[in-house]
Amino acid sequence: MTPSEVRQLLADVQAGRLATEEAFAQLSEPAVGDLGFATLDLHRKERCGFPEVILAQGKTAEWVAGAVRRMAEAGQDCFVTRLSDEQAAHLSAHFPQAVQDRLARTLWLPHKPAGPLVGNVLVVTAGTGDLPVAQEAVVTARVMGVNAELIADVGVAGIHRILRHRDRLAAADVVVVVAGMDGALPSVVGGLVDCPVIACPTSIGYGAAFGGVAALLTMLNSCSAGVCVVNIDAGFKAGYVAALTARRVEKARRG
Amino acid sequence: MTPSEVRQLLADVQAGRLATEEAFAQLSEPAVGDLGFATLDLHRKERCGFPEVILAQGKTAEWVAGAVRRMAEAGQDCFVTRLSDEQAAHLSAHFPQAVQDRLARTLWLPHKPAGPLVGNVLVVTAGTGDLPVAQEAVVTARVMGVNAELIADVGVAGIHRILRHRDRLAAADVVVVVAGMDGALPSVVGGLVDCPVIACPTSIGYGAAFGGVAALLTMLNSCSAGVCVVNIDAGFKAGYVAALTARRVEKARRG
Amino acid sequence: MTPSEVRQLLADVQAGRLATEEAFAQLSEPAVGDLGFATLDLHRKERCGFPEVILAQGKTAEWVAGAVRRMAEAGQDCFVTRLSDEQAAHLSAHFPQAVQDRLARTLWLPHKPAGPLVGNVLVVTAGTGDLPVAQEAVVTARVMGVNAELIADVGVAGIHRILRHRDRLAAADVVVVVAGMDGALPSVVGGLVDCPVIACPTSIGYGAAFGGVAALLTMLNSCSAGVCVVNIDAGFKAGYVAALTARRVEKARRG
Amino acid sequence: MTPSEVRQLLADVQAGRLATEEAFAQLSEPAVGDLGFATLDLHRKERCGFPEVILAQGKTAEWVAGAVRRMAEAGQDCFVTRLSDEQAAHLSAHFPQAVQDRLARTLWLPHKPAGPLVGNVLVVTAGTGDLPVAQEAVVTARVMGVNAELIADVGVAGIHRILRHRDRLAAADVVVVVAGMDGALPSVVGGLVDCPVIACPTSIGYGAAFGGVAALLTMLNSCSAGVCVVNIDAGFKAGYVAALTARRVEKARRG
Amino acid sequence: MTPSEVRQLLADVQAGRLATEEAFAQLSEPAVGDLGFATLDLHRKERCGFPEVILAQGKTAEWVAGAVRRMAEAGQDCFVTRLSDEQAAHLSAHFPQAVQDRLARTLWLPHKPAGPLVGNVLVVTAGTGDLPVAQEAVVTARVMGVNAELIADVGVAGIHRILRHRDRLAAADVVVVVAGMDGALPSVVGGLVDCPVIACPTSIGYGAAFGGVAALLTMLNSCSAGVCVVNIDAGFKAGYVAALTARRVEKARRG
Amino acid sequence: MTPSEVRQLLADVQAGRLATEEAFAQLSEPAVGDLGFATLDLHRKERCGFPEVILAQGKTAEWVAGAVRRMAEAGQDCFVTRLSDEQAAHLSAHFPQAVQDRLARTLWLPHKPAGPLVGNVLVVTAGTGDLPVAQEAVVTARVMGVNAELIADVGVAGIHRILRHRDRLAAADVVVVVAGMDGALPSVVGGLVDCPVIACPTSIGYGAAFGGVAALLTMLNSCSAGVCVVNIDAGFKAGYVAALTARRVEKARRG
Amino acid sequence: MTPSEVRQLLADVQAGRLATEEAFAQLSEPAVGDLGFATLDLHRKERCGFPEVILAQGKTAEWVAGAVRRMAEAGQDCFVTRLSDEQAAHLSAHFPQAVQDRLARTLWLPHKPAGPLVGNVLVVTAGTGDLPVAQEAVVTARVMGVNAELIADVGVAGIHRILRHRDRLAAADVVVVVAGMDGALPSVVGGLVDCPVIACPTSIGYGAAFGGVAALLTMLNSCSAGVCVVNIDAGFKAGYVAALTARRVEKARRG
Amino acid sequence: MTPSEVRQLLADVQAGRLATEEAFAQLSEPAVGDLGFATLDLHRKERCGFPEVILAQGKTAEWVAGAVRRMAEAGQDCFVTRLSDEQAAHLSAHFPQAVQDRLARTLWLPHKPAGPLVGNVLVVTAGTGDLPVAQEAVVTARVMGVNAELIADVGVAGIHRILRHRDRLAAADVVVVVAGMDGALPSVVGGLVDCPVIACPTSIGYGAAFGGVAALLTMLNSCSAGVCVVNIDAGFKAGYVAALTARRVEKARRG
Repeated sequence: MTPSEVRQLLADVQAGRLATEEAFAQLSEPAVGDLGFATLDLHRKERCGFPEVILAQGKTAEWVAGAVRRMAEAGQDCFVTRLSDEQAAHLSAHFPQAVQDRLARTLWLPHKPAGPLVGNVLVVTAGTGDLPVAQEAVVTARVMGVNAELIADVGVAGIHRILRHRDRLAAADVVVVVAGMDGALPSVVGGLVDCPVIACPTSIGYGAAFGGVAALLTMLNSCSAGVCVVNIDAGFKAGYVAALTARRVEKARRG
Repeated sequence: MTPSEVRQLLADVQAGRLATEEAFAQLSEPAVGDLGFATLDLHRKERCGFPEVILAQGKTAEWVAGAVRRMAEAGQDCFVTRLSDEQAAHLSAHFPQAVQDRLARTLWLPHKPAGPLVGNVLVVTAGTGDLPVAQEAVVTARVMGVNAELIADVGVAGIHRILRHRDRLAAADVVVVVAGMDGALPSVVGGLVDCPVIACPTSIGYGAAFGGVAALLTMLNSCSAGVCVVNIDAGFKAGYVAALTARRVEKARRG
Repeated sequence: MTPSEVRQLLADVQAGRLATEEAFAQLSEPAVGDLGFATLDLHRKERCGFPEVILAQGKTAEWVAGAVRRMAEAGQDCFVTRLSDEQAAHLSAHFPQAVQDRLARTLWLPHKPAGPLVGNVLVVTAGTGDLPVAQEAVVTARVMGVNAELIADVGVAGIHRILRHRDRLAAADVVVVVAGMDGALPSVVGGLVDCPVIACPTSIGYGAAFGGVAALLTMLNSCSAGVCVVNIDAGFKAGYVAALTARRVEKARRG
Repeated sequence: MTPSEVRQLLADVQAGRLATEEAFAQLSEPAVGDLGFATLDLHRKERCGFPEVILAQGKTAEWVAGAVRRMAEAGQDCFVTRLSDEQAAHLSAHFPQAVQDRLARTLWLPHKPAGPLVGNVLVVTAGTGDLPVAQEAVVTARVMGVNAELIADVGVAGIHRILRHRDRLAAADVVVVVAGMDGALPSVVGGLVDCPVIACPTSIGYGAAFGGVAALLTMLNSCSAGVCVVNIDAGFKAGYVAALTARRVEKARRG
Repeated sequence: MTPSEVRQLLADVQAGRLATEEAFAQLSEPAVGDLGFATLDLHRKERCGFPEVILAQGKTAEWVAGAVRRMAEAGQDCFVTRLSDEQAAHLSAHFPQAVQDRLARTLWLPHKPAGPLVGNVLVVTAGTGDLPVAQEAVVTARVMGVNAELIADVGVAGIHRILRHRDRLAAADVVVVVAGMDGALPSVVGGLVDCPVIACPTSIGYGAAFGGVAALLTMLNSCSAGVCVVNIDAGFKAGYVAALTARRVEKARRG
Repeated sequence: MTPSEVRQLLADVQAGRLATEEAFAQLSEPAVGDLGFATLDLHRKERCGFPEVILAQGKTAEWVAGAVRRMAEAGQDCFVTRLSDEQAAHLSAHFPQAVQDRLARTLWLPHKPAGPLVGNVLVVTAGTGDLPVAQEAVVTARVMGVNAELIADVGVAGIHRILRHRDRLAAADVVVVVAGMDGALPSVVGGLVDCPVIACPTSIGYGAAFGGVAALLTMLNSCSAGVCVVNIDAGFKAGYVAALTARRVEKARRG
Repeated sequence: MTPSEVRQLLADVQAGRLATEEAFAQLSEPAVGDLGFATLDLHRKERCGFPEVILAQGKTAEWVAGAVRRMAEAGQDCFVTRLSDEQAAHLSAHFPQAVQDRLARTLWLPHKPAGPLVGNVLVVTAGTGDLPVAQEAVVTARVMGVNAELIADVGVAGIHRILRHRDRLAAADVVVVVAGMDGALPSVVGGLVDCPVIACPTSIGYGAAFGGVAALLTMLNSCSAGVCVVNIDAGFKAGYVAALTARRVEKARRG
Repeated sequence: MTPSEVRQLLADVQAGRLATEEAFAQLSEPAVGDLGFATLDLHRKERCGFPEVILAQGKTAEWVAGAVRRMAEAGQDCFVTRLSDEQAAHLSAHFPQAVQDRLARTLWLPHKPAGPLVGNVLVVTAGTGDLPVAQEAVVTARVMGVNAELIADVGVAGIHRILRHRDRLAAADVVVVVAGMDGALPSVVGGLVDCPVIACPTSIGYGAAFGGVAALLTMLNSCSAGVCVVNIDAGFKAGYVAALTARRVEKARRG
């Protein structure tokens, strides 16, 4: 609530235009969904433009299902990430209408049909093994209402593989680059575009790849200025930031 | 050069409309500024929207000055970051017309006067000690033609300090959050806005802060989905990605 | 034995009021329970206020059972933590009267019924996945005779979730904050209370969470002054230190 | 403001007992001291029991002086830590009435004379080199109104050195143990007392001490249950948590 | 395409000796094999002397099989590394004519019979447990057409074990040294030969071996000047670099 | 062969007292057992006083069995460490006369009956979970002909547990201290004895124990001067160095 | 000495063709230069093709000078690396005829004039700040008798900068790639050539560059197969391995 | 005090043979030297065979001098290590009779003249830069009354340099091996001797030497069984453990 809104409320109370209980409710903290094991943030969409997303990892299948049910009851779109096979099966049985993507390991249970996709996010991977993470980014962008396309396996050891996509790179609002091992691709892509590049390291690799740390460090130290980074294997976050950016551009487009 | 442009060029050569040497020049790699100790990328602005930026750290004052001169001769805006006091003095003597910001440790030598600033970047710091890095982000955004404002020292130990700026947060195209020590502020800001948050860890802190590593890890693991990260103390990169985003939004605004 | 106690003892021996063997026994090291594979500290409760607690992890089920039996024989309350499913089943069969908490992975075999709980420990978690660790803290405090209540899933991405519990925070003797991923919640809580905050990082998270290291570092570097830290996933220790504090406050209350 | 206070306020407004502007002020965020380079939390003492403390490290001497002045103007006690020699000299000149402790590297500028010290904090060091950190803990506790005594250089290589202080250990409300190198002392102390032990690792040592990391890890993994930990060299935090604990005990004592 | 080749092409087009479509094809990016989930670099052999090699780890068996099939269709030799047992079985069924080495975990499906092996690579291991990695190096060199011989288990604890092979060491074009644990062998070998030594650390060892990090660091810090290093367990890379070197020497031999 | 021995040999050859082939054999490198997959050092016992020991970890059961057989054929005592259950079963079937210790995970196949044990090694553990590593040390010392006794679970949280064994500590030639978690025990023991202390960290613990790294660092930074360290979980090495020391003392005792 | 040489020697002794003292000398260990503070390996050139190189870092100027003098006296070429300014001045005074390169921080004091340079090593840097390390590689190769050329500042953010040197890359016997920050350039170069690539990370960068660790990890995990790696800032080693390779190729060329 | 001694004491008290105050004094903790800033362990020599040693690093010159004076007053030999130049000068002025070794950075102020040196410790270094650490080991052994000799710069890159000292190695009671960089020498030495090898890593090296961590890890993972390790640059500890061992052997020799 902004200061002027508070002043108006007080004036309304003083003038008798507003009951104190109603005023109290308006002044109170935003609503939550209290489940004992979880406190769902039912106000998230108003503040951040998208409802709270449920990370399945580290939760029992029952906890995940309980959260999904509560989100649905609150009339919110519900998106779940990092579902294990066991959790996925459990949710399949309880929410047969939900859409699952097994490569991305996601579940999507929208409250109402989405409108047409807008904007233009390009997701690029250095290798084939990076695909699950990239797909998580693609699915995330799409459930947020944004177009996302995927180009796979164009790492720098064959530099012509990415160069042949210069047109598509130039057309994107934002590019997500997903890479494990040496994580070198975002630096090359960053030197080819004038939009933000979101680099997402993956745990693909072995030995001194250290589960994605090598790629993460490469990306943080990118010699290309327009590259920012998300956590290792965080396809969800990469897609989320990309979609936030694309939506803001789209909103400006529409005035 | 796009495929259709190449086809057209060949047709022109075949038809005698284009001399082979001219065609050869068009097919060649973009121009560089070769200084022996440096190969300036004089084509960067066309691809990425801003000329190559010179990182002064690790270079002799002479190397930096040589690069600045070559950029100026090529008719390009020239931006230098991470200037030591010694380098700054050297450049002051050689380029008195350049603008230096000693808090940000930058130099700016534009080729021609800039137009009015556009867009809306908000740079927020958790502490006072984070100011040099934040100022580097602000200056970077401004030389790229983007409005950037600064809110200092609103870390989470006094949570009302950031909450009182909710209006300004909501109005931003993108928010840069600069924090050392626990690096917790971006997670809170990320939960208050619907635009991308670019988190920039700083080396402020001691002991297990490990020169910014603690803050970096906090930010990479942010529980807020819309947070991406740049390198420790990389105010330049934070400002750069923020400005790329704001420019793209602004461009869409103008159609 | 304090110096004045020793002097008194010697005077008693000299005066013939105390037999030398009895004096020798009083001067000797405190008793232990020697099992070959373990040397139970049967004097711990006198020194530290609570008997030795058995960490099941890294022990065979037989070793754990042997230690539990010896503690019981010595007339001591027996608390076991970090029980695997296999160990839990083994102990269930041998000590059916013991209370197990499968979420906390603990076993409690008191020597005699406990009195009413005292004091006021509040255990708060940032996420749902942090619940097993938080429950270990709650159970630990309770077996030590201290009231402990749990608030789950109020991480900083929805800051109003913790702010709505300001009254309960203000009423606590000590607050335990359990968080994985970015570990940012203790810094916010530390800025809201005037009692000690015990931060407990968890291994919840992925990628650069590094099994709880990210949260641990965040907490060690908390910008809130009143925050101290225990080991990753050490719900037991968090609960133990909290209970020690609450007991000491309670003791002072009672004069 | 608690819910019932808000309800009362609204009732007062409705009844005309309270002007809307006055009500608005009461509902607003707590006051801050906005200095441009700093946003001082002038409400900290009300929430946390002690005013915001100024960390001098990473700030210019002018920034520190500006913050001290603003705190003083706001009628708050002002405590500064980690002063460099240069900052100390600058502040000496501007605030001659302030008390500096050069071993602890602190400055104390109270708003009004303090009352008598209460409670009983014992600060113990493993070595002589740990003294500056220990002294920071002692000074912090004292400016917070709590008695703190120091026992120096009683590391475990001569175990009788700490054992001879068993009486003083038993009498403490809370014990702070400061140690570098192997950081083993807190585990021994933790096995001798029934109050919380706050372990503070120091950067004393060489080689694989890794600037205090070895001692930090030792303490986090202490085999004594009642040990919690603060950051490396964080004498301030150790003293702060200890004083919070001692004050709470003292408050209970007084009913 | 080199500049003079481009000039010639344009002259040919101008002179009507070359159709524009043919010229366009020659100017275009090199061919790739686009499979959706992979973009095979079908031009790799022309640039690097050996076709793209498929890393099976992190891919589904179907993805690996699809890539193998596409390589074969393109008339290229196909080499696959780091095959799991499951992938190996799947490929066995689909490509019965391919040669698998289960110790090295490789598959080899040549397009046409290879010529005789040339050059002289010596692969030496410190221990028996290093054999799988060493065998991967041997197989890699051989599929690249280079002789490779293996000497096993001659670590420095019995220094005479390597010294008795001085003749073979002196005769090699390049020596690959594979070692885990202390990784000391390459330093000794490097002091005995005048050819490059490629050191390959393995994850053999325990405790502070840290999965091969100890051996990796030893090798990077070798006191012998002629030692370069590849990733932990990267027998493939060690064999590859060795074969590139041996082929280049052989080529020079043949004039 | 020492220089004077070489001179004598040459004189003997010159004088015709020694055939050249015999002289050649004496000058040659010491014998090895070449198995293709292993090069057993059959000369180790002469140089180091004990035959090569076989580390089973990382080897196939067949490789281990092959090495054991070859050692036996060469008339050498054969000691194997770190046997997995599968390897142990395989060796049981092939070498029924060998002695296995399943807690220590060792196999012992002596060539001839050993003489009486000599010397006095004391192996002490901080916790019960450290027993397997400690037992490996005990068994190692014994197969090397040295007396070794075990005291279990006397960690520093109950300091009287180790203090009651002061007599046994004082009587030892060398003390091995095995500890996980905080690894603090060796520092205390080192302050009680005048013989070398060999500290062996274990991987017992969780969270920031980092698989034994915390204990390792504690021990390397021990404030007791007489403490040296072996690898994490390296009970074998601890026992080996202890036995070497005890044997040397014993040898001196016997003159 | 090879076995057949030993046999011949013994036969000569037996036959009286060789005096025993002479035979003894031939059988003895190779000569060293014993200086008390150093044991120079005067046999290194015979085994490895180049004399022992002196690392100045960590030595007093007097020690370095003493080693240089002894090498010269032994009639060996003398090469010194990592000279500090102070050491350089000291050596300048004592060895005015030696050639120093202050960018590379080397000294070269050949025993006799070198022949013409052979072979073809190409040293490429990603940035200008990498030049000192690259120059050390260039100088090293040249004192070893090998041609080495330098291309500076062609990092991947402007990919055309390296692509325009494809001809020179293709002509090299071996390529050294020197890069700090993201260390991505070797992966691109590795995909363009059919010779070995020696990647040398530098400590250029800041924050999460960790003094070159980021670049080192990138290079170890390069997606290009033909890339091996040397230590951070080890221009000497990179040049040394490159020269060994080029010399071997050259030797084969000459038959 | 052993149990039987306590019994005797009590009997004496009972029988009136011993005054209670005298008995009390005998039962009390051993004496310390309490200086406020230090608690000197004046009983160390009785327990450990050598008085407490003063680590100068991290202390003021006044603190060090105060400790030296107190040790001397107590009639104890006084040994100080890691003296800075400033501390050394301060102590020189106050204790002109003390012996300082500036390479080892030690001070030695014996209470009475030492007897002849006994035993046989051999200290070996891999490089010249390791000399200061090695000298600290040598001096430490000597002040403890043990013969120690030094062999410098015999690293494994010229393996004959150590092999020529086989006789001296075989004659030693214990060998200390000091090495930086790859730290490979202890593994080779460990394979040549039948006595304990104490490996001491040094911080000599650069890049991935990580200040001695690389050498430390190499040594911890030594493939030679008889190698134990001390902290990086801990020449003092290496010499101390070696001397403890040699003294114990010597004592046995003398019966």
